Amino acid sequence: MEYKISDRVQTLKPSAIREIFKYAADPTVVSLSAGNPAPEAFPVKEVAEISARIMAERPVDVLQYGLTEGYLPLRQHLTAYMKEKHQVGRDFDDILITSGAQQVMDLTTKSLCNEGDVVICEAPSFIGSLNTFRSYNARLRGVPMESDGMDMNELERALKEEPRAKFIYTIPNFQNPSGITMSLEKRKQLYALAKQYGVMILEDNPYGDIRIKGEYIPCIKSMDEDGIVIYVGTFSKVISPGMRVGYAIAPKPLLQKLVVCKQGADVHTNMWSQIICHEFMTKYDYEAHLAHLRELYRVKSALALRKLDECLVPNKITYNPFEGGLFMWCTLPDGVDMPAFCKEAVLRKVCVVPGNAFLTDESEPCQSFRINYSTPTDEQLVRGIELLGQLAKDVL
Amino acid sequence: MEYKISDRVQTLKPSAIREIFKYAADPTVVSLSAGNPAPEAFPVKEVAEISARIMAERPVDVLQYGLTEGYLPLRQHLTAYMKEKHQVGRDFDDILITSGAQQVMDLTTKSLCNEGDVVICEAPSFIGSLNTFRSYNARLRGVPMESDGMDMNELERALKEEPRAKFIYTIPNFQNPSGITMSLEKRKQLYALAKQYGVMILEDNPYGDIRIKGEYIPCIKSMDEDGIVIYVGTFSKVISPGMRVGYAIAPKPLLQKLVVCKQGADVHTNMWSQIICHEFMTKYDYEAHLAHLRELYRVKSALALRKLDECLVPNKITYNPFEGGLFMWCTLPDGVDMPAFCKEAVLRKVCVVPGNAFLTDESEPCQSFRINYSTPTDEQLVRGIELLGQLAKDVL
Repeated sequence: MEYKISDRVQTLKPSAIREIFKYAADPTVVSLSAGNPAPEAFPVKEVAEISARIMAERPVDVLQYGLTEGYLPLRQHLTAYMKEKHQVGRDFDDILITSGAQQVMDLTTKSLCNEGDVVICEAPSFIGSLNTFRSYNARLRGVPMESDGMDMNELERALKEEPRAKFIYTIPNFQNPSGITMSLEKRKQLYALAKQYGVMILEDNPYGDIRIKGEYIPCIKSMDEDGIVIYVGTFSKVISPGMRVGYAIAPKPLLQKLVVCKQGADVHTNMWSQIICHEFMTKYDYEAHLAHLRELYRVKSALALRKLDECLVPNKITYNPFEGGLFMWCTLPDGVDMPAFCKEAVLRKVCVVPGNAFLTDESEPCQSFRINYSTPTDEQLVRGIELLGQLAKDVL
Repeated sequence: MEYKISDRVQTLKPSAIREIFKYAADPTVVSLSAGNPAPEAFPVKEVAEISARIMAERPVDVLQYGLTEGYLPLRQHLTAYMKEKHQVGRDFDDILITSGAQQVMDLTTKSLCNEGDVVICEAPSFIGSLNTFRSYNARLRGVPMESDGMDMNELERALKEEPRAKFIYTIPNFQNPSGITMSLEKRKQLYALAKQYGVMILEDNPYGDIRIKGEYIPCIKSMDEDGIVIYVGTFSKVISPGMRVGYAIAPKPLLQKLVVCKQGADVHTNMWSQIICHEFMTKYDYEAHLAHLRELYRVKSALALRKLDECLVPNKITYNPFEGGLFMWCTLPDGVDMPAFCKEAVLRKVCVVPGNAFLTDESEPCQSFRINYSTPTDEQLVRGIELLGQLAKDVL
């Protein structure tokens, strides 16, 4: 039978990263292509404790239907926490608990974009979000990245040329995949431009708590006096991605639309996970946990950076300055065939993500690839970068 | 700020049931308006045991990212189980684990319907699904129900008149809200008509395991030699709705589209819940658990039916024959103002769902309301039906 698939979905492809995971499943291949938190970063003991307690004391709260908006104590705590720690959220805002941050991208696109509307995004950007935007037949307009965030002249040009632009998607901290952090100056400029052109900002901040060095920079949402920013948070990188708990903080009239869409999407987010996140934040030392994570990733990223300096840099591969997050963005010299390099890397048993996978148009030229240092063991990390170094030495 | 909401979402309203829940939150009001499983139906001890075991033995499986398709052991077990027990699933089918059954409605509509395409559904039908279809700007075409399922002449007329029909949505067992079960004859007719007119069938079966009396009738999916049926299952009514675990069994080319959409929707379903469902099905006596549920609901529904016979029937309110599921569908005599009756009921401290909430066009005339017997305590159930009886006595 020939299935009549909707136009919006007919052209969707599984993400290139997903395809690369197939190689990564080969146990003889060192995978530097994932984006998983380090398994040793999970607060296993605490989650086990909380889980046992809630199943003993209030199992019906865990097992019965919940509210679409989310578990009220978690909503209340997060609201206060984000306001106090990050100045995120005002009286006109409200909070929705979602099934991971990815769901915020989905609900936002569904609520704001008619088919053919435009999403302005960083180029490169997180492929998972780009595919979600595409899945509603939104058109992507990429804005090139500079070392301190989007090129603001190009952003303004895009805003001028795209009257159907509905929102600007940005990951301001340790962006996936480029690792770039947007400067305070550019955050202010981006906010002013969005306001001027009447478009919303979708601020995705999965890595903000994993700053390894450099100064804290305020969230764009903290500047949001006009109600034009949708802030996206998640517990995936700081507690557990398998739990699928994220959240949106957004102006009430818009958030109510996200709630209606979520009701039709999955009714509500898994209750066990929501209660675990709330108890972990309120009955344990959450800040100490974040400090522990930062130390763990500081040590692990230092190992990766040392090996990059030792194996790649002398062989003409550069990488973006690293301040936090889970990725390093490496760039081959001009003239080198990047996809061929990545393909050859797999044959030599190390897997990275070709940078064009993160572009709004995958066929555009790209000299970069992404490395993840958090998922592999230290031994795999060292071995993987050494294999890349040897390849660079042989072919560059 | 004036938010520019997409056309598809602009017109969406929160479900009427949701609004009614607000009354239901008043502790002095007896709520017969929910659709929750009875809290005593949850396998609390078993879930607590499994949870403790998996957090001790393999916490990383619980906490790390999983695959979009779902937890492989659960997919494999469910595939075999559904094939053996219900003859559901053939070689051309595959299975996707979803965040509740509701997500299957969402992914299916997204994958099959362009804006303006038509979904043919039973009238009345489950409001949650109807709202999901609406959220993609699909147009609903209702087909009236008879005591043994959809009116097949009206269904054929709808198929003739709606060239943009993409699928027929049906809940063949103990339908929500009408309680009606489609006869085997009509299941065959529905299948033949769908095949003839080249539309898919979305078969939603949340209550199939809660048959209280009467003979088992095969699923429509068991007749699916042509790959035109998407079967939707869920653990919400048999293990726990707070876990949000459902599944789709559908032909591979279509299922792959659902997978791509799910990747963009929430990446994958919560791992803890998936592992709990798998362990509960394989390491405990699952069939004994289902038998226990049926007994529990047999006793509880018998109480409700006895009270209906005692308090409503003598006061001119009839109800559909009850064979299983969680609802009774009651009908007021012609000429009585049903919405006014339901409103007056709330003032007298009992809350039911007005039947027009379940229609494709809520403004159509309707004489019925829905009662749920599983959520209230026995005392509440008795008191609620007595209040309705007194109201009927006073106003009819």
